Formats: sequence, C-alpha cells, structure tokens
Amino acid sequence: MAAAEVGDDVLDGDPTMRELEERVAQLLGMESALWVPSGCMGNTIALMLHLQRGDRFLATRAAHVLDNELGAAAWLAGGIPEPLPWDAAPGRPSPEAVTKAAGTNGPYYRLRTPLLCLENTHNAAGGAVTGPEEQAALVAAARAADLRVHLDGARIWNAAAALGVKPSELTVGVDSVQACLSKGLGAPVGSLVAGSRAFVEEARRVRKMLGGGVRQGGVLAAAGLVALDRLDRLYEDHDAARQLATGLAELGWKVREPHTNIVLAEVDDLHQWLGRLREAGVLASSMDGCVRFVTHRDVSRQEIGEALRRIAGRAHG
Amino acid sequence: MAAAEVGDDVLDGDPTMRELEERVAQLLGMESALWVPSGCMGNTIALMLHLQRGDRFLATRAAHVLDNELGAAAWLAGGIPEPLPWDAAPGRPSPEAVTKAAGTNGPYYRLRTPLLCLENTHNAAGGAVTGPEEQAALVAAARAADLRVHLDGARIWNAAAALGVKPSELTVGVDSVQACLSKGLGAPVGSLVAGSRAFVEEARRVRKMLGGGVRQGGVLAAAGLVALDRLDRLYEDHDAARQLATGLAELGWKVREPHTNIVLAEVDDLHQWLGRLREAGVLASSMDGCVRFVTHRDVSRQEIGEALRRIAGRAHG
Amino acid sequence: MAAAEVGDDVLDGDPTMRELEERVAQLLGMESALWVPSGCMGNTIALMLHLQRGDRFLATRAAHVLDNELGAAAWLAGGIPEPLPWDAAPGRPSPEAVTKAAGTNGPYYRLRTPLLCLENTHNAAGGAVTGPEEQAALVAAARAADLRVHLDGARIWNAAAALGVKPSELTVGVDSVQACLSKGLGAPVGSLVAGSRAFVEEARRVRKMLGGGVRQGGVLAAAGLVALDRLDRLYEDHDAARQLATGLAELGWKVREPHTNIVLAEVDDLHQWLGRLREAGVLASSMDGCVRFVTHRDVSRQEIGEALRRIAGRAHG
Amino acid sequence: MAAAEVGDDVLDGDPTMRELEERVAQLLGMESALWVPSGCMGNTIALMLHLQRGDRFLATRAAHVLDNELGAAAWLAGGIPEPLPWDAAPGRPSPEAVTKAAGTNGPYYRLRTPLLCLENTHNAAGGAVTGPEEQAALVAAARAADLRVHLDGARIWNAAAALGVKPSELTVGVDSVQACLSKGLGAPVGSLVAGSRAFVEEARRVRKMLGGGVRQGGVLAAAGLVALDRLDRLYEDHDAARQLATGLAELGWKVREPHTNIVLAEVDDLHQWLGRLREAGVLASSMDGCVRFVTHRDVSRQEIGEALRRIAGRAHG
Repeated sequence: MAAAEVGDDVLDGDPTMRELEERVAQLLGMESALWVPSGCMGNTIALMLHLQRGDRFLATRAAHVLDNELGAAAWLAGGIPEPLPWDAAPGRPSPEAVTKAAGTNGPYYRLRTPLLCLENTHNAAGGAVTGPEEQAALVAAARAADLRVHLDGARIWNAAAALGVKPSELTVGVDSVQACLSKGLGAPVGSLVAGSRAFVEEARRVRKMLGGGVRQGGVLAAAGLVALDRLDRLYEDHDAARQLATGLAELGWKVREPHTNIVLAEVDDLHQWLGRLREAGVLASSMDGCVRFVTHRDVSRQEIGEALRRIAGRAHG
Repeated sequence: MAAAEVGDDVLDGDPTMRELEERVAQLLGMESALWVPSGCMGNTIALMLHLQRGDRFLATRAAHVLDNELGAAAWLAGGIPEPLPWDAAPGRPSPEAVTKAAGTNGPYYRLRTPLLCLENTHNAAGGAVTGPEEQAALVAAARAADLRVHLDGARIWNAAAALGVKPSELTVGVDSVQACLSKGLGAPVGSLVAGSRAFVEEARRVRKMLGGGVRQGGVLAAAGLVALDRLDRLYEDHDAARQLATGLAELGWKVREPHTNIVLAEVDDLHQWLGRLREAGVLASSMDGCVRFVTHRDVSRQEIGEALRRIAGRAHG
Repeated sequence: MAAAEVGDDVLDGDPTMRELEERVAQLLGMESALWVPSGCMGNTIALMLHLQRGDRFLATRAAHVLDNELGAAAWLAGGIPEPLPWDAAPGRPSPEAVTKAAGTNGPYYRLRTPLLCLENTHNAAGGAVTGPEEQAALVAAARAADLRVHLDGARIWNAAAALGVKPSELTVGVDSVQACLSKGLGAPVGSLVAGSRAFVEEARRVRKMLGGGVRQGGVLAAAGLVALDRLDRLYEDHDAARQLATGLAELGWKVREPHTNIVLAEVDDLHQWLGRLREAGVLASSMDGCVRFVTHRDVSRQEIGEALRRIAGRAHG
Repeated sequence: MAAAEVGDDVLDGDPTMRELEERVAQLLGMESALWVPSGCMGNTIALMLHLQRGDRFLATRAAHVLDNELGAAAWLAGGIPEPLPWDAAPGRPSPEAVTKAAGTNGPYYRLRTPLLCLENTHNAAGGAVTGPEEQAALVAAARAADLRVHLDGARIWNAAAALGVKPSELTVGVDSVQACLSKGLGAPVGSLVAGSRAFVEEARRVRKMLGGGVRQGGVLAAAGLVALDRLDRLYEDHDAARQLATGLAELGWKVREPHTNIVLAEVDDLHQWLGRLREAGVLASSMDGCVRFVTHRDVSRQEIGEALRRIAGRAHG
C-alpha cells in the first residue's frame, strides 16, 4: 500500500485504482468496474441505476439488499421489493418462482418490475453457492420476463472457489455485479461494482453523489490487488470450514453442511452459546437462529483445532 | 355540492371541509381527520409520518400499499416492506406472524421496524373482513413489539356494515386510519386520513408538499357528507353481492363467499370471460386470477338479475 | 357539475375530464394535458420529469416553485435551484442572466443544468406579465444552453388577457406548462400540466404515485370547462384592479402599477393595515412587504368602490 | 498504516479509527466525531440530520454543498437552498444577511428554515478565511433566528493555521462540523463529521445507509493520525502560496491575495493558460474564471521557484 502510485481519483483517476478496476472487470467478465467504499454502496448504486422511482424488484428472501442495507434499496433507489422463496435450495429461488413473481407489465397504474437481484454466495443461507447452470436458468427466466439482473457477488470469489470455476462463469448474462475485496479476500476496505461501460460511467457519477468518491484511493486499491493475487487460497478457508463443521458434528452439534467459509450450527440456547464462545475466545456471531463461524486467511488449521478444543471444554460448563 | 359553503382550504380552511373532517374523525373514533384527494395519498402520508428513511414496515401480503400505489411506500416514505402471510384467514395474518416478523430492534446497523400496516376490508382478498376481536389481537401483537399501526380502511365502511359494528370499533388502538369517500360510498373524489391532532397537523403539511392541498374543496366535501348520511345503505350492496354470488353458483361458477360488495369467481378461462362479460354489458375486472364483480348504489337487485341472465346466455356461447 | 358525465379517471378515463384536458391542451398550444388537483402538483410533476436526481435548475427569484411549494422541487424532484435575478424587470430575468447561470456542462463530477423554470404572470412580483417577445428571448437563451423550459402558468390566463394575446402565444417553445383553473378562473379545484404526448403519459404515472389520481373527477372538470368559457371576463378583473389602484393612489397610498388582477400597495405599518382591513371587511393578504389585493369574478365595480370607501374611513382610525 | 491495529468498524469499532475520531473531536472542540470516506458524505450526513424533507437552508453563495456535491443537499437531504451573498467579504455573508434570509417561521404552508451552513475556509472564494469574531457574529445571528449551524470545515485546519488559532476556536456554537484529512493535510482518504454524541450516533446509522461504513478502516485512520501530527506544517504551505503569489505578481499577473494555500490569478485567456501550464508541467486548475494553484506538503519552496521560472518562460510563448 505504501508504494502505491496514486492520483486524485475523483478528478482524473488514480493509476493503481485503474489497474484494480480493470483487473476486477476482467476477472468478472464485465466491460468495466468501479471501486466503491463498501458492498452496500455497490449494491445501492446498481439498484439506483436499474430502477426508477417506485419500481418493484425481485430479490431472494433474506438477501443482503433487503435485510442488511438499512433500507437503501427503498429510500435511495426507490424500489419496492418482492422477496422470492428459497424453493429450489437454501438461498435460491427456482426459475419458475422468478417467472411467476415477474408478472407481466400492465397499464400505467400498475407497478413495473424491471429487475431481479441474485446473491451468490447467499450470506443468510450460510454462504450457499449457486452453480453456473442454476444461475443460467435463473438469468434466462429473468430475460424471458424482460428483467435485468444484478448479482450481489460480495462473496463471488468464494462461490467460484467452491465450485472450481472462474468468477466470470458466474456472471454470464447478468447486467451488473458487486464483488467485495474485504470479507473472504482480506483487503481492508472496498468493493467493486461492474457492468457495461455506460453503466459504470453513470455509476461513477452516483458514487460521487453518495459521497463515495475518494481522493488518493490507490493505497486501498493496492491492498485489493494483493488480495486478488491470492484468490486460490480461498480453498484453504473452505477446507478449514469443513474441518470445523466435522469437528463440531463430532461434538454433537447440529451443523449445516458448509458450502464455503461460513459454518452455521443450530443450537437450542443461542445466546448462552454466543456468551460461552466469547469467553472461550472463539469469535462467532449469529444468523438465522444459528451460531455463525467464518474461516479466513488469518485462521490456520491449528487454530481450528484449538477452537474445537475450547468449544468441547465449554460444552460441559 | 352546488350549495356548499366554501373557503380557501389551503389558507384558512373551508367550512364544509371542516365539517366533513370532524364528522369522519368522530365516525372513526380518531381525534382529527384530514381530507386528501385519494386513498393512495392518505396511505402515503401515513407511511411518511410513521417511517423514517429506510425503516422496515410490516404489511399484509398483497396489501394495497404494496401492490397498488406504484411503490410510493418505498420512494416517498422510504420504507422497505416485509409482507405478512395470510396465515389466519384470506387477507389476514395471525398475531404470531406479526410478532415473528417484528423481530427485536438490534444495533444501529440493523433495520428498524416501527410500523404494522393492516387493511380492512382487504381488497386483494376479495373484500375480506377482519372482525373487532381479530383486529384487537393484531394491534396487541403490534403494541407488544413496539409497532405503531396504520389501518388502510379505504373500505372500512363496508367492513363495519358487514360486521354490524360501528367503524370506530375497528380502529381501536390504531395510530392512523385512511378511509375513502369514493368506492362503496359513492362520492366522486376524496379520502380522509385520521389520527391524533399532532399527526393530522403534520399530515396537512405533507399533503401540501405532495400537491394535495386544494382551494375550494368544499364542493367535494359536500358530496362526501351526503355519502356519509347513507352509510346504512351499504347493507343493500352486500345483499346484492350475495344475490350475485348465489346466482353465479347456480350457474355452476366456483364463487368465493363474498364478505362485502366484492364477488370473486374462479374461472378457467379468465381473459375469455372478461371479454364475454364486456360484450354482454356486464362490468367486471380481474383480481388474483378471478373475475371480480363489485356491487354499489347504482346497481339494483333487478340489474343483478339481468346480469345473471346475460351471463347465463354467454356461458353457452 | 351535477350533470357531468363521469367515469373512473384512474382506470379508463372520465369523459368530461378528457374534454377538459383536450380543451386546455389546445388553448395552451401543447400536444396533450393532464388534470392535477393543484398547481403545486403540476409544477412538481414537471420538475420530476425534467430533472434527474441532483440536477440543478434555474428559476426566477421568488418563484412559486422555490418559495411556495414546501421544497417539493428539492425533495421530490431532487433538484437544486439557482435563483435568477429580476434584472430585466420585476419578476423577469434577462436572457443574459439565463445564459450566464446555465454555464456549460462539465465533467461527471459537476452539476448538470437541464432546466429553466419561468413564471408568467409572476405572482411574487405582483402578477407581473412577461410579453411574447421577452418570453421568446428567454426561451431562445435556454435552448442555446441546452435547457428545457417549464412555464409555471398558474396565472397564464391573466397574462394572456392583460397582453391581449392567446395563451398559446405565451408557450411557444416551452416543453411543459402548468395552468390553474382555480385562482383567477374561479373553478373550485384543479390545474393542468401540459406538454408532449410522451410527457403527459409519464406525468399520468407520476400523478398516480403522488396520490393525485382521482376517480370521478368529471365533476371538477365540468367546473373547469365552465371557467374556460369565461376567459374573456378576466379583462373585467384587470379593470377592477386598475380602479382599485387608482382609488388607493387618490387616498395617498403608494401603489405599484397592476399588470393583472393583483394590486400591491406599499405601506409603512403593514401588520396594522392588515388588521384594519380585516375589521373593515376588506379581504387582503401580504406579499413582499406590501398589502396584496386580488380582484376576481365575485368582486364587482360597486364593491371596489365600497372597499375604497371603507379603507378611506379606516385611514383616520 | 501497515502497523495499524484494526477491527471491523461497522460491527464493533476499529481501535485506530476510534483513536482518530476522539482526537479529531477534541481538536474541533466537539463531543464526538465520525470518520466518513469523503467530505461530501460528511456534509450530506449533516444536512440529512439537520433538515427534514423540503426544509429551506441558508448557505454562502458558491458553497461546496451547493455547487460541488452533485445536488446531494437537495435529493438526499431534501433541502432547498437559499444562497447568501458575499456582502461582508469574499466567501462571507454578513450577520444581517443571515437575519434577513432566515425570515420568520410562518403557517404550515410556508417553508421552514432550520439551518445555516457556513464554509471556512471558503474554497470558491480562493480559500478565504473567516476569523473567530466574524464567525461568532454569524453564529449569533443564526441562533437569534432559531437556526442550527453546520460548518463545512473541509479546510478548517488551514483556516486555523492562517489565523494562528486553534481549530476549536472556529467551531464555537456550531452544531456540526466537517473536516477533511485529505486536501491540505495530505492523508489519502477520509473526513470526519463531528457534533454532539446523539448527532454522531445517528450519523453512524446514516453513514451505513449511504454505504460509507467500512470494515478495517484503521489503515486509513492511521494515515489520518499521522496527518494530524503535522498540523503545524500548514504554515509552510501558506508561506509557499505567498511566495507564489508574489512571484506571479512580479511577472505581471493579477493575483488575489492568498489567505491560505490557494492562489487565484485572474487571466484574460484562461483556457490557453491552463494548456500552457500543463505543457510546462505546472499543475493548476480553474475556479471562478481564475487560474487556481494549490500548495501542499509535497511542494517545496524550490519547486515554487521552478514553477515560476517555467511560467515566466511560457508567457512569451
């Protein structure tokens, strides 16, 4: 970061930022990409560009854009959501559900529905992965109903690693995608929102309006570039998650099969367990009534073992 | 209308408007009421006053505020909706569903949920009526979860007539209510939004901002006062709806039991039937995959009989 | 009004409303027109259609859209205004002021300026009239700077009557215009916003979103049609205003020359005078530090004489 | 930056971020402060918290919040601005202008005016400084008219250095202040918005809504802390600006007296000069029809001398 070549990214572009944006656009198979300070802002900008005031949009139930962005989809993008069921798999609607919810555009006094928003991996479903074929079928259903598609790919790197595919295989046919550099990738700050050149041009303007334009962003972009060089180590996080899930199951926990680096374990006494884990020095949060563990680059297999030992010790407390 | 005493309702109040507003406030058991040009505006103003930007709100699935107001709940009130299931009855969630969806207020980065929005009768459920006890239980569940309650009572007059109760028995404990003068009541234009004096004071301001303040509104208020004098004739519309439903059932139609003046009939070939009815001079629309008939003051029992005869004639066409 | 043929104006159009809209479109020389419940809503809809979020727009200083619509231009249309000076005449900027304020469109991080908003007659300038030549020069300056033009013609009927021209001579080259049926025209409720067919199509949608769509609006449209039949009697109001101004001057008041039916009189002790006039039964308000009188169809020349006598009597009090 | 201790700033706070926020709050004499990715976002959040939809606010003519934030004041904060004249000094209104523009709060259908927004130094006035006494008089005028005060102090560090006062002497009586770490201070990214504890609590929420919450922001905070350690070197930038201004004057340029590190020079052929300077390797931009030079920590006195030599050489080309 210290050696990064920087410029004023608002006025005329910061070279390290440009390099990051081009690299991510290429990895995601999109024409162009734009750095934003957060995944929230990336998703919000995409919704703002795809929706007009009052438009209805479809999003998977419990999607991040619905539940975790403080209603920005509504008050900033003006969109009214229609949650889609997880009728195909946890975190995934069926193409039929998309078709049914899309409806047909009616007279002027009916809601318009121009957008489907997908999330891969789906955070609230425990990092559930949607494969390229399933994703293609969803995109096809959207296209058939004249919907554009935005992919919340905050964790797309993990999805691709889990599936053994390139990230760009998961963006086929989508109009825009957001991908985070923090979270699994381990860069400190930032996300990218990608789409066509025209989309990114307008996104740059909206980013400035929202206060997301920064000056010498190259110091952050440099960290992002480093993180992207290490995409292949995400397999290790997924291995570690499986190790943790196996170990918890052996301790008698009811664990959902992890797809990526998120492990959800169902417990009866959630709040007590969160307290015990905190005391034991094992960092965990809650999601969907479960204890939620996340593995990442700073958690080794040895540390997973140590965490399991501490958990085993607490179970008797 | 022609004899109405009028003033400038924006500047200093129109006496006929004042009379209408006081009359409706009293009928609805609220402190104060405000005329608005449409039920949409009444609901929108209520949502704007109850919600802050980005707040989540609960509303019965397929509620008018969700599906029929062009997303105003989102882009004007900034609210992100959580649809409640019809798990108690068509058009009605259970108190448990309210409790579950309300959740608990978490840290600053979680959505706040300050409002429950009910609808009685529920239009998309074919004018389904919620009784005072069921309504009280829903309001109690909302209160227990620190929610305010807005009642979309566009058709509250029909609900009260169907239940044989006063309208004010259906607003116990709610913070605001919207009631239409058009629709079943038959006045040409206008609705009222009612609540506390402070609520209405601010509502008056927001009405002006939305462009709903009118000058000599007394001419419309006069029609509204006439309509309110005839609340008891709504029973006739409900009788006529039952007559129609019975007649259709005798013709072999699969008819949903009407609660009020809306009759929903399930047919296999909806679009063909809408065409046939139009040709036969029987006015009907579609809702939820059904043919939707509405009875009102200008439809006599003789005309219902005539409509049934024409429908019978078409069935063989 | 009672004999008006009505329909549901939201669903499929009310015939009397259609007649009114076509008549006004033709009078204003625009392709199409749409009824709205208030002039505020008409202006707001126009700004919403002409501006994108965050756009800058030019408007004459003290314009109604700036000072009298509760900020709807900002929070509903998202526009940031640039007030233009009255450097040509009271209520009128020069074409040079338009050119200078329009600026040139810069890089993406600069404000865009797509709209000029004019007002004729200009209410806050005492009903000041802009003639066709001056208006044409302002429109030409706007066009040269790639600005669209919206005309707030709430009182355009008075402007046309004062100038002895057709209203359509005052809308040459403008993209949209709003004209009121209440105010000078004397209909109880309603305004029209006019523009191209595509503009009105989208305006109809936005009207519904704002809650301005009404059901049996024909009763109001009928009153509007009557008012439009009497456009030529506006001359009488202007005569009455001149009679009042002359009389006040003879009483020693400092009166601004009235252009239309608004008379502004500068007094030292404004609040005392407003009180005295109220006691004397002479209705007046204040504007720009002056006493403001308005003549209209219900004020005869005899009544002007009576008002002057009462004012003369109070002067000694 | 590399050695910064970090945490997740959205969830539970990042320790380096906390240190930066406390340090800035103390320097600015405010209860609390919050990091934001840009000065634009800091100003926007302040306006959003001080204004309600449609409120009018006063701001110095050509203020950053009016001209350089893509209308966020209008479409995000819903505010309609009233520009104040520079009647006291370039970039500074008089207290009388504040009093006059504030007006008095009228009936419900009048605009409310709850906020005065000041800017110190005033960028568009060439970095013009307002001293503590002048500022206090403006704040007093605002208070007397029931206005809150937001100070856009993006360059407050330069104002304080130029005046030889502490930054906190320039925030006496204000409700909120925004101060940048980039610009003169030289940190790569970030600003702070400061106010009461309650203000900052709500600001944290709005920051998340706008997408300005970042995860491991400590790396940026660390750079900010370093920048704050070097506040006293801003004197050098101001000296360098004076050196440049003197040199330009000797070359016959018409230079405005610099207050801080911004030098504005009036030239007849602005665009040609910008081109010549670019060719000569002297970085400059334009503002208010002038060439705008900015001195900062990476520009030495020797480099100023070199720049002047190159400019002298170009004058003859």
